[in-house]
Amino acid sequence: MPKIVDHAARRREIVEVAWSVIAERGLEAAVMRDLARECGFANGALSHYFPTKGDLLRAAWEHVFERTNERIANSTVGLRGVDALVQFCKQVFPMTLTAQAEAKVVLNFWQRALSHPDLAEVNDKAMTTWRAFIRQCLEEAQTDGVVTTSAEFDIEVAVEELLAMLMGAQMLAVLTPDAHPPQLQERMITTALQRHVRTQDTAVN
Amino acid sequence: MPKIVDHAARRREIVEVAWSVIAERGLEAAVMRDLARECGFANGALSHYFPTKGDLLRAAWEHVFERTNERIANSTVGLRGVDALVQFCKQVFPMTLTAQAEAKVVLNFWQRALSHPDLAEVNDKAMTTWRAFIRQCLEEAQTDGVVTTSAEFDIEVAVEELLAMLMGAQMLAVLTPDAHPPQLQERMITTALQRHVRTQDTAVN
Repeated sequence: MPKIVDHAARRREIVEVAWSVIAERGLEAAVMRDLARECGFANGALSHYFPTKGDLLRAAWEHVFERTNERIANSTVGLRGVDALVQFCKQVFPMTLTAQAEAKVVLNFWQRALSHPDLAEVNDKAMTTWRAFIRQCLEEAQTDGVVTTSAEFDIEVAVEELLAMLMGAQMLAVLTPDAHPPQLQERMITTALQRHVRTQDTAVN
Repeated sequence: MPKIVDHAARRREIVEVAWSVIAERGLEAAVMRDLARECGFANGALSHYFPTKGDLLRAAWEHVFERTNERIANSTVGLRGVDALVQFCKQVFPMTLTAQAEAKVVLNFWQRALSHPDLAEVNDKAMTTWRAFIRQCLEEAQTDGVVTTSAEFDIEVAVEELLAMLMGAQMLAVLTPDAHPPQLQERMITTALQRHVRTQDTAVN
C-alpha cells in the first residue's frame, strides 16, 4: 500500500518547525537545508512544499497570526463587547511562554517586513482584522450601554491606542521582561478596558 | 601643518552614515566595506574608529536614543508634569519623516537585540530612562494637583501603558502608515494624557 502523505498536514508541520527555529534562534537561522533536516526530509524535498525560502517564511508569519486568531476565536465563544475584548487582549499580550515565543517571531518579521512587501502585507492584513475586531467589540459595548456613546469618546483613537499598546508589549515583554511581567499586563488590560465603561457618564448625568 | 582630525566628530559622522544606511536598507546592508566607502575612508580605516561591526552597530543604536533624548530635552525646557509629557510623546511618536526613519532603525535593532545582549542592554537602558521620565512627569502632575492621587490611579500601569503605546506606534507607523497617520497620533497623545487630568475627581467631590 502506498504511503499516504497529507500534503496540508506536512506543510503545517514544516511551518511549525520553521516557527520554533525562528523563535529560538532568529530568522538568520532559518536555513532551508537545516529546516529540511529538522523535519526529517532529504535535502531538497522541502521545495515540494515550499518552492522558495520566501514562501516558507511567509507561511510561518501567517501561522503566527493564525495561531493567535484561533486562540482568540476559542476564548471569545459566546462573548461580545468588553468581555470579548478582555479575552482578545489576553491572547495577544505576551503573557504565556508560547505567546512570548510568538513575540520573538513577531520582532523578527517586523524587521524583515520593512524590506519584503509580501511580509508587510501579511502584517497589514492582521492589523486590519484586529482593528476591526476591537472596533466591533467597542460598538457592541456601546449598543449594550456598557461603553459611553458621548461625542467625546473617539472610537478610532480607542482602537488605535489599544492596538499600539498590544504591539508595544510584544517588544517590552521579550526585551525588558523584568519590567513587563504578566501580572502587570493583567492590570494594563483591566485599566485600559475599565476606563471605557460608563462610570463617568453616571457621575456627570 | 598636520591635518587635525576630530576623533569624536569623525565617529559621529560614521554613526550618522551607518544610521541612514540601516534606515534605508536595513541592518544586512550595513557592511563595513560599504560604510567605509560612503564615509570616504579607505577600506580598513573604519576600524580605527570602530574595531568591529558590533561596536559600530551598538554606537548606531545608542545614537537613535541620544537623538531622541536630545529632542526631548530641547522640547521640555522649562516644562514639567503633563506639559512635559506631551512633548515627550511628540518626540517619541513617529510623527515626522525623521522619526519614521528612526522607527525603521528601531525595528531593525529590536530584532537583532534578541540575539545580541549588548544591543538588548542599550534598549533596556533607554526603556528604564523613559519609564522613569514618564513616572516623574506624572508625579509632578500629582504634586501640582493636575493628576489624581486617588488610590485607584495605578501609576505603574499608567507608565507602562504609555510606553507600550509609544513602542507599538513605532511599528504601526512604518508598517501600516495609512492607518496610523500623524494626525491620529496627535489625538492619541491628547486622549492618553487628558484622561489622567483630574476631571473625574472634580465630578465626584
